Amino acid sequence: MAIQRSPLAPASFPALAPVAGVRLATRACGIRYTDRPDACLIELAPGTPVAGVLTRSLTASAPILWCRKALSGGRARAILVNAGNANAFTGAAGRDSVERVVGAVARKFNCKEREVFVASTGVIGEPLPDGKLTGALEGLRADLAADNWAAAAAAIMTTDTYPKGATRQAEIGGVPVTLNGIAKGSGMIAPDMATMLSFVVTDAKIPAKTLQALLKPAADASFNSITVDSDTSTSDTLLVCATGAAKHRRVSGRSDPLLRGFRAALDDLLRDLAHQVVRDGEGAQKFVTIAVSGAASRRAARRIGLAIANSPLVKTAIAGEDANWGRIVMAVGKAGERADRDRLTIEIGGVAVARDGQVVPGYDEAPVARHMQGQEIHIAVDVGVGRGKATVWTCDLTHAYIDINADYRS
Amino acid sequence: MAIQRSPLAPASFPALAPVAGVRLATRACGIRYTDRPDACLIELAPGTPVAGVLTRSLTASAPILWCRKALSGGRARAILVNAGNANAFTGAAGRDSVERVVGAVARKFNCKEREVFVASTGVIGEPLPDGKLTGALEGLRADLAADNWAAAAAAIMTTDTYPKGATRQAEIGGVPVTLNGIAKGSGMIAPDMATMLSFVVTDAKIPAKTLQALLKPAADASFNSITVDSDTSTSDTLLVCATGAAKHRRVSGRSDPLLRGFRAALDDLLRDLAHQVVRDGEGAQKFVTIAVSGAASRRAARRIGLAIANSPLVKTAIAGEDANWGRIVMAVGKAGERADRDRLTIEIGGVAVARDGQVVPGYDEAPVARHMQGQEIHIAVDVGVGRGKATVWTCDLTHAYIDINADYRS
Repeated sequence: MAIQRSPLAPASFPALAPVAGVRLATRACGIRYTDRPDACLIELAPGTPVAGVLTRSLTASAPILWCRKALSGGRARAILVNAGNANAFTGAAGRDSVERVVGAVARKFNCKEREVFVASTGVIGEPLPDGKLTGALEGLRADLAADNWAAAAAAIMTTDTYPKGATRQAEIGGVPVTLNGIAKGSGMIAPDMATMLSFVVTDAKIPAKTLQALLKPAADASFNSITVDSDTSTSDTLLVCATGAAKHRRVSGRSDPLLRGFRAALDDLLRDLAHQVVRDGEGAQKFVTIAVSGAASRRAARRIGLAIANSPLVKTAIAGEDANWGRIVMAVGKAGERADRDRLTIEIGGVAVARDGQVVPGYDEAPVARHMQGQEIHIAVDVGVGRGKATVWTCDLTHAYIDINADYRS
Repeated sequence: MAIQRSPLAPASFPALAPVAGVRLATRACGIRYTDRPDACLIELAPGTPVAGVLTRSLTASAPILWCRKALSGGRARAILVNAGNANAFTGAAGRDSVERVVGAVARKFNCKEREVFVASTGVIGEPLPDGKLTGALEGLRADLAADNWAAAAAAIMTTDTYPKGATRQAEIGGVPVTLNGIAKGSGMIAPDMATMLSFVVTDAKIPAKTLQALLKPAADASFNSITVDSDTSTSDTLLVCATGAAKHRRVSGRSDPLLRGFRAALDDLLRDLAHQVVRDGEGAQKFVTIAVSGAASRRAARRIGLAIANSPLVKTAIAGEDANWGRIVMAVGKAGERADRDRLTIEIGGVAVARDGQVVPGYDEAPVARHMQGQEIHIAVDVGVGRGKATVWTCDLTHAYIDINADYRS
């Protein structure tokens, strides 16, 4: 079955300028794919601070367990990523593979092992042929270049239908800094394929602890606010590295006013990458924004939003271009967060279809129907109990999702 | 689109013997369907104890709010059910409808209002034309008969493809008692249709409090252990009524040894009805049993089981007859309950495919592949941390689910 480029894909991969202190290389190692680069090495200037958010899965992959440990060191010299094999559910052999790879990279870069990060995405449960990766190391290092962003984004793809990248500029105390990021992922876990990976770098000079403090809320409002099919991967990895090559004033912590512009740029970059993952959601035909307000807290609002976004009945209704607000009411009810049924308000495409717990009598269905026929669907829900707000993003649930995931063998 | 009888349906509706103290009638009221009975009245002997389990949805329907109140009285004289309109998300008008219907039934049976139970299933958000129901009351009462079980099961259907009923016999202190039950439901909430209803009666003599104590665990192991699409309806209702016509010895509480047989029969009856709901799951082609063991508690085991059962990736793999244990590992990881990744064991169709956190090297794929081609799929998962066990049931996720729920209007 040929997988077509998502109809929601951006027109092209953006132009990513080099970031001082970062070089990238890719290589075809034949781990699973035989006709394309499947490994990506990212080199970072010595001593680069790193922050990360990793999957909360209790069956996390071997690379995740390593990264959890390595993150406590707060420095990254190299990130080695492979596609085609997730090194998940591989037991002690998986751990040994990671140790061999990490050791080889550390020797190559003459750095500590805990300055080496690894990420693997692909089939679960098969031993990682790590020799193919370590064997490619010398070639990867020789090819390192500052302008390899598009190739890097392509090398980490699995079932993605397009490479995902984004770039932003900001100023810290008047000094320009750049943020570049790449990502992959098209289901929370694709056909046997685990997962969502994203790597972001900047030349800003930010200590690891501050970077982590900036990353957490930014990840919550982006990658933790998207869903394709409610499934959670064994391998989700988001790393942010700050080489410190930019010569700006020293920053004093996450609340430093100097960081205002950087923080906004990081938030925006991660949201952009997260949206690109949703737009490549398996079988997606429509990009859906769900804004929840009036909840008891921001966290409650996000849970309500995700309950709506994960409901198969809401998602199939959207696929069918049906403004089925009854299913939205149902999803609010199952979220387990406080909501006042009799103050519930729902807008679709900006038109109020339900207010104070009842359908709006005689609302104009024509603009709502037209909105549902578009590619960008906007749903706003106010649950009438507080001031908590959150926005989440998802896609519709279509026949193509079944096609992609029901791998008819018979 | 014509909906065909589910391939997983039982061969025929079972023969339900009359239960002393119970009579039923059905009638076409034209609430939404114009070509079939859509109302069902169940009359119970005066003073019949009743117990119930209702949806936990926070956007529950008007009938649910009434039943919550009425259940505190512990007696049922009549249950009036309609299909086609759920009287959900109808605000004050919905509550007024319920009050009019309940008042009319109470006058007709000369009983207290809180001895009248109502249930509505069908579209959400439209006012219930309650006059059609109350107008049919006299005719319904005239038609009451002890042998109307099959008609009653049919009258409460919405998107169900077959009527659901079950019967069991038990003895209490040597005296035979009968349990009859009917149910409807095919998604947690079907196309605009809300949802799972079940009514069970017995001639056993059991006080309401004891009946409630028996019902809770029985419901947890049956209707609360099934899932079609993870969605929760605004209207789920399960009522059990015990007319007390059987002349057995008095029972002293839920742990009374006299009740052992009855308890087993009730458990079995509810499980049968719950399975019938899953077998009518929208688009279902396969009936899936997921047995979880080794969890921290029974509750944890059930949550892990439901995480597997609700995973779109697991469900599409089953639809594709793919023994994709990697997705099962993923679902265990996202359940949020303790599991030891490196002691995880997975059996499919009785064959161990993964053990101690790794695929079983060279396991025989042939019997597993044959098993996946069948209609009855068995998955067993041991998560290796404790002694908690639970079994849940679901169906696969197929193109037909999308067909049924994406009501292509364009």
